[in-house]
Amino acid sequence: MTEFVFPKERLWQMAYRIFMKMGCREADARTATDVLLSADLRGIDSHGLARLSGYVRLWEAKRINASPTITIAHESPSTAVVDGDAGLGLVVAPHAMKIAIQKAQQCGTGWVAVKNSNHFGIAGYHAMMALEHDMIGMAMTNASPLVAPTFSVERLLGTNPICVAIPAGGQPPFVADFATTTAANGKLEILQRKNQDAPPGWIQTQTGQPSTNANELKSGGALLPLGSDREHGSHKGFCLGAWVDIFSAVLSGANYGPWVPPFVSFLSPPADPVGEGIGHFFGAMRVDAFRPAEEFKQHMDNWIGRFRSAKTIEGQDRLVIPGDPERESEHERSKNGIPLNEKVVTDLTELCAKFGVPF
Amino acid sequence: MTEFVFPKERLWQMAYRIFMKMGCREADARTATDVLLSADLRGIDSHGLARLSGYVRLWEAKRINASPTITIAHESPSTAVVDGDAGLGLVVAPHAMKIAIQKAQQCGTGWVAVKNSNHFGIAGYHAMMALEHDMIGMAMTNASPLVAPTFSVERLLGTNPICVAIPAGGQPPFVADFATTTAANGKLEILQRKNQDAPPGWIQTQTGQPSTNANELKSGGALLPLGSDREHGSHKGFCLGAWVDIFSAVLSGANYGPWVPPFVSFLSPPADPVGEGIGHFFGAMRVDAFRPAEEFKQHMDNWIGRFRSAKTIEGQDRLVIPGDPERESEHERSKNGIPLNEKVVTDLTELCAKFGVPF
Repeated sequence: MTEFVFPKERLWQMAYRIFMKMGCREADARTATDVLLSADLRGIDSHGLARLSGYVRLWEAKRINASPTITIAHESPSTAVVDGDAGLGLVVAPHAMKIAIQKAQQCGTGWVAVKNSNHFGIAGYHAMMALEHDMIGMAMTNASPLVAPTFSVERLLGTNPICVAIPAGGQPPFVADFATTTAANGKLEILQRKNQDAPPGWIQTQTGQPSTNANELKSGGALLPLGSDREHGSHKGFCLGAWVDIFSAVLSGANYGPWVPPFVSFLSPPADPVGEGIGHFFGAMRVDAFRPAEEFKQHMDNWIGRFRSAKTIEGQDRLVIPGDPERESEHERSKNGIPLNEKVVTDLTELCAKFGVPF
Repeated sequence: MTEFVFPKERLWQMAYRIFMKMGCREADARTATDVLLSADLRGIDSHGLARLSGYVRLWEAKRINASPTITIAHESPSTAVVDGDAGLGLVVAPHAMKIAIQKAQQCGTGWVAVKNSNHFGIAGYHAMMALEHDMIGMAMTNASPLVAPTFSVERLLGTNPICVAIPAGGQPPFVADFATTTAANGKLEILQRKNQDAPPGWIQTQTGQPSTNANELKSGGALLPLGSDREHGSHKGFCLGAWVDIFSAVLSGANYGPWVPPFVSFLSPPADPVGEGIGHFFGAMRVDAFRPAEEFKQHMDNWIGRFRSAKTIEGQDRLVIPGDPERESEHERSKNGIPLNEKVVTDLTELCAKFGVPF
């Protein structure tokens, strides 16, 4: 499939104008655009501009409120529940993460569960907000049910990602940002576009049998939890996905499990909701609430340096530290531009035409 | 291998007396015995009485202090670093978890990193201490390096388990307690005893090639992170193990990664330590710091009930909720006794003879 490369500034302006046309406040449009573009820059193409028209369709379906009044529904010195007022997750999530950071400044750590939100882009953006404050950041979210727990034929969980971002000193930060499934849905979409099979262990059929058909989800199949099958620990991947779901939604009062509303606007949310919107969970921990920040960062440098220099399997030139590939992509794409495949370009061209936004 | 079944009270008395002979304070001996026995009761045989002689040997080697002065090295309203004074992890960990619970009572959540400790038994015991307070409990620990990160031939991480315990109402609590590897080391030990091969994807040889030899670790091989290989997400299992290592040891000032001292007394700790002892990390979150506890528990009941009743793959009669197998084992073994294999019985018999403890 043909790709086109765009300078990031041009894509930023385009997305910003679309958010403004939706009726976002100026600051919110900036934030949403920053979050969205950070996915494209960091190489997580499935969560960037490829989703912009999806957000617009949810707004058109009145499932996203472009000018939400985000409130604190409940709080304690180190916690809060935030009501996102059905806003863009791209706006609600950074707002909630700021509250977590403020709580951490005051009492060491801050933990914020969010209800009544929508898809928040990449978890990494939000968790990494903590880094400049010498804090460890965490972000997780539930998502539309696409994943069958071990032994289930039903799709009961989303790909429910977790990000943990940890500051270092001379070394770049440790940033682990991953779906709690064997493979993220975005990886499957790449195979679908290329008309290729998926490796065994990523998906199952609608009756729970192993499959390598990358289009299996369209016939009622499911993604598998990290571990793939029981013998290889899929029950642990299920534990992780369940943990994210409960922290994000049962703690906050959002929809959980199979009740999470679908991202696509052509599917209706369940008629019997158990909460409001989708849920997220954020954490910020001040490093110096545990030990002096400089001391911590020196040991993080030692940790990262030791792992980075590990002896590798023949044919592999390095051990990849979590965050390395995304940071390298961000550096490269900031300089040389962001590649978009022709399907995404067509989609964005139509969107811009509809809103009268130059592209 | 022959098994012998003992009533739990008899094993409790025996272990308690051994801890007393080591010089533990009375209350500490009780706690250590409770933690150790909880592993046998919950069916995690590798972490129970099978390890008692190992703890004794570490004490004989002066690597475990039987009467530690456990102190708070640093704290903030929601955090603390605890110095375990080289005590038994079985004693230090519940002490630290209590501090986390106290912090949570005061400001919503409590987070305690521990240095200068030793093997703490099962993570589940400590995390579950939060449940009776209507809190979510978390426990993690680093451990002797047996795991090769993705692409590494070196063993740089332990099996680094995580437990998340979440209270429910009418349903039993959700308790996910798992090693961040494809298979726990205890699973491998079972295969070794039975002289059986391991499934592909659990271990690699000392050059990083796939292996099914359950004894591979004795020839420099390694356990693999959850996910098994890169294509099935082992980089995510590496993220999890690294996260546990950093929270447990870099935050606290314990040894991390390849510097973690070995559990076995016949191997010396590294000559160039980067911290003190091994590290743990505990968390407690008051449910009502987010929403009313009754409301939360009602939704947890709904969550668990929905997942428990999911349609399963043919041949599987139920979806296993995290914590179900361990709770069922605890119920059964409390009633019918704890099975120990003959090797463990011989080991304990020798230990009791040495200390003049009846068995």
